[in-house]
Amino acid sequence: MYEGIVQELIDELAKLPGVGPKSAQRIAFYLIEQDNDVAQTLSEVLREAKEKVRFCQTCGNVSESDKCGICSDQKRDFGLICVVEESKDINAIERTREFRGVYHVLGGAISPIVGIGPDQLRIKDLLKRLADPDIREVILATNPNLEGEATATYLTRLLGSMEISVTKLASGLPVGGDLEYADDMTLGRAFEGRRRVN
Amino acid sequence: MYEGIVQELIDELAKLPGVGPKSAQRIAFYLIEQDNDVAQTLSEVLREAKEKVRFCQTCGNVSESDKCGICSDQKRDFGLICVVEESKDINAIERTREFRGVYHVLGGAISPIVGIGPDQLRIKDLLKRLADPDIREVILATNPNLEGEATATYLTRLLGSMEISVTKLASGLPVGGDLEYADDMTLGRAFEGRRRVN
Repeated sequence: MYEGIVQELIDELAKLPGVGPKSAQRIAFYLIEQDNDVAQTLSEVLREAKEKVRFCQTCGNVSESDKCGICSDQKRDFGLICVVEESKDINAIERTREFRGVYHVLGGAISPIVGIGPDQLRIKDLLKRLADPDIREVILATNPNLEGEATATYLTRLLGSMEISVTKLASGLPVGGDLEYADDMTLGRAFEGRRRVN
Repeated sequence: MYEGIVQELIDELAKLPGVGPKSAQRIAFYLIEQDNDVAQTLSEVLREAKEKVRFCQTCGNVSESDKCGICSDQKRDFGLICVVEESKDINAIERTREFRGVYHVLGGAISPIVGIGPDQLRIKDLLKRLADPDIREVILATNPNLEGEATATYLTRLLGSMEISVTKLASGLPVGGDLEYADDMTLGRAFEGRRRVN
């Protein structure tokens, strides 16, 4: 244990995801010992981020205004909606440059264990958006884990009666991966989703 | 890349030691999405820490006043000085409850590669302290790596002519470790420092 404020700083840092007590101590001392204004800048950016960041009223992405950069971009295809769990998933998909449609952030996935049901997710907002007849396709891009799959299944049923095609990202072997090290589930999915190539 | 302040926050967090771009993103979204004042508190504690924390004028330990808790504690043995590289090393040693003397923080270790020589360390302050005839022993507790060993060797030579005993922490097999997995250097040191037990 350290004296007063040093311990307080370590405790606060240790609350961050992925930061254990040892890393928190290391970060705290780094911040204290730096000559320049690393701590000062971080403190200000933190406050500013908390003040400025809001969520896009259309898709739920993080944004500094009521409409995020993607929803304001007239070059995007508004007939294609990609449903993701979190804002950070948008960033991952944007990096691929494969998708030119827009997004819808659910704000998580269905997980009865932590008490998240469909009502806790932005599903009503999604249904409202889908009332627009210009929307042709909903791509479900939830995480390929238990919660993500449950959410995708729920949404597939919910949207089943609509005149919109509902698709799901392909599951299979990761590129650059090794067949030998693939887990059974992934390998099973890769077989299930095999495609003819000749 | 995210919009404005979100990316700024990620960039600032990624500067912290042990925090890569992925963790920085995870922490940033955690801070943004939290309802309560996690970010607010962290921001304040950071500023407060930077304002309040100074270094003990005697030993160089982090402290909220000019003299740290250890140097102000009259129950400590002021005749024993344990020389460490960083304030956090003091914490590690204090946890053992083995040592009742006082400390001296060098502020690093000799490392020509990163441009740290003896002049960048608090060695002059150490010599000043050692002028006190009540000091009986200096325990070198630098890290058992290249830089720490170089620093210990330098200090051993420097203090060689004084009437004070200079000792060094024992190197050897870590408790709970496995002989099979010990590296050659450690095992070598364990042999070199073997003690008679009968």
